[in-house]
Amino acid sequence: MTSKPSHGQWQQVEEDIAHDILTGRLSPKTQLPREADLMERFGVGRHTIRRAISRLQSRGLVQVEQGRGTFVRDGRLEYRLSERTRFSQNLLDQGREPFGQAIREEEIPASASVAEALRLPRGEPVYHIVRRGLADEEPINFSNAYYPVRRFPGFDKARRDGRSVSLILAEYGIPDYIRLRTDILVRMPTPEEARHLDLSLDKPVIVSKKVDVDMKGTPIAYSESVWPGERVQFSVDNTSQLLDVLARNSDF
Amino acid sequence: MTSKPSHGQWQQVEEDIAHDILTGRLSPKTQLPREADLMERFGVGRHTIRRAISRLQSRGLVQVEQGRGTFVRDGRLEYRLSERTRFSQNLLDQGREPFGQAIREEEIPASASVAEALRLPRGEPVYHIVRRGLADEEPINFSNAYYPVRRFPGFDKARRDGRSVSLILAEYGIPDYIRLRTDILVRMPTPEEARHLDLSLDKPVIVSKKVDVDMKGTPIAYSESVWPGERVQFSVDNTSQLLDVLARNSDF
Repeated sequence: MTSKPSHGQWQQVEEDIAHDILTGRLSPKTQLPREADLMERFGVGRHTIRRAISRLQSRGLVQVEQGRGTFVRDGRLEYRLSERTRFSQNLLDQGREPFGQAIREEEIPASASVAEALRLPRGEPVYHIVRRGLADEEPINFSNAYYPVRRFPGFDKARRDGRSVSLILAEYGIPDYIRLRTDILVRMPTPEEARHLDLSLDKPVIVSKKVDVDMKGTPIAYSESVWPGERVQFSVDNTSQLLDVLARNSDF
Repeated sequence: MTSKPSHGQWQQVEEDIAHDILTGRLSPKTQLPREADLMERFGVGRHTIRRAISRLQSRGLVQVEQGRGTFVRDGRLEYRLSERTRFSQNLLDQGREPFGQAIREEEIPASASVAEALRLPRGEPVYHIVRRGLADEEPINFSNAYYPVRRFPGFDKARRDGRSVSLILAEYGIPDYIRLRTDILVRMPTPEEARHLDLSLDKPVIVSKKVDVDMKGTPIAYSESVWPGERVQFSVDNTSQLLDVLARNSDF
């Protein structure tokens, strides 16, 4: 009875609803109109609506709850930036399942920017580790990380075994570390990034560049990660600085 | 002698060079190849190259220095996010001239999200102030800010006079305030935002949402600003937290 949905049609429906979600016109937890209402609004068939909804679901924008309906997802993944930022914990705190996937690793001489970030002489050997991070099986970042070889001999193998950075660093006698600095900017993805993130080339990515230091302030890791702009938001919380100020004020 | 440059040609040259700059292939302060070399590389005439360079200049990506040549601009505007973030100071620190432009203001009932951020009852009156921020006459942000009317009667008029938020708040007995929280996300601009930012509709914007509190922790302002993704980067510096840790460790 219903004809096969044409490519252009479901894409238009997908983009229209995605636009409403991403600009906030449809807020998180809102229920999407029923299929019949969407069919009428867009003047298309049931299959076109279903195809669009399925795409929105795989983009992480809506959640289909069996028997209840389709709801705007509970916002983007919220990634907190603090001096204690850890990928896995950050995701677990939001009820998302973290997973890291090794893509490749190599030992290379530090480029000018890597050497500067790690405060090493240019050309000093570093492990370059390329990984992909997932949240509930959805690609959430693609990262290039750099670790000084002299300080962490064999780091590449330990990381390949799938252990977390925190665990591996503990084995090298670094029980704790601090995120010293994060830079955030936006650009379009490279083809490789788009492929690993399951993202189209015309969707912007957020780039985060960070330097971690040990408890003596020596840089131990530098990384550049790209995140699909439509799946994540970053937050910087200064509550602890505020509490310091309140405590100081109450002294007077 | 030379024919008028075609639209597609200079746009292609512009986009190719912009891509090299934005992905870092051409780094800040690098000199662009000479006109003759660009003409040969792209197989186009002098006017096409000049038109493209002029566009890159107005986008803030290159700087034409008379008699010396054309150089990649000294990076994007770097906007530091800390508990003490102030727009004007942030720009002045980088040798950029800040300017704020009032666009419109109105008194409205607080929406759900504004009320939540300001910890007010929903519907409580707030001043909604729309402004545009410029750096060296280049549009750098477009913001919607909200201030509680009861706490700051007449705030809208004071702001219209062009005084800085810090100065006006001081007049209301708030000598200092703290940035409690910043959320950062990416999306495409609305037509109004694109117009005010002199940005095309297919270029992503960074959205920053922030809550400022007084020294007792009471919210005094909430705002949402959009920034052209290609003209700015944000940085979060945790050096002060690191210094706290170093000081604590040296106690042992």
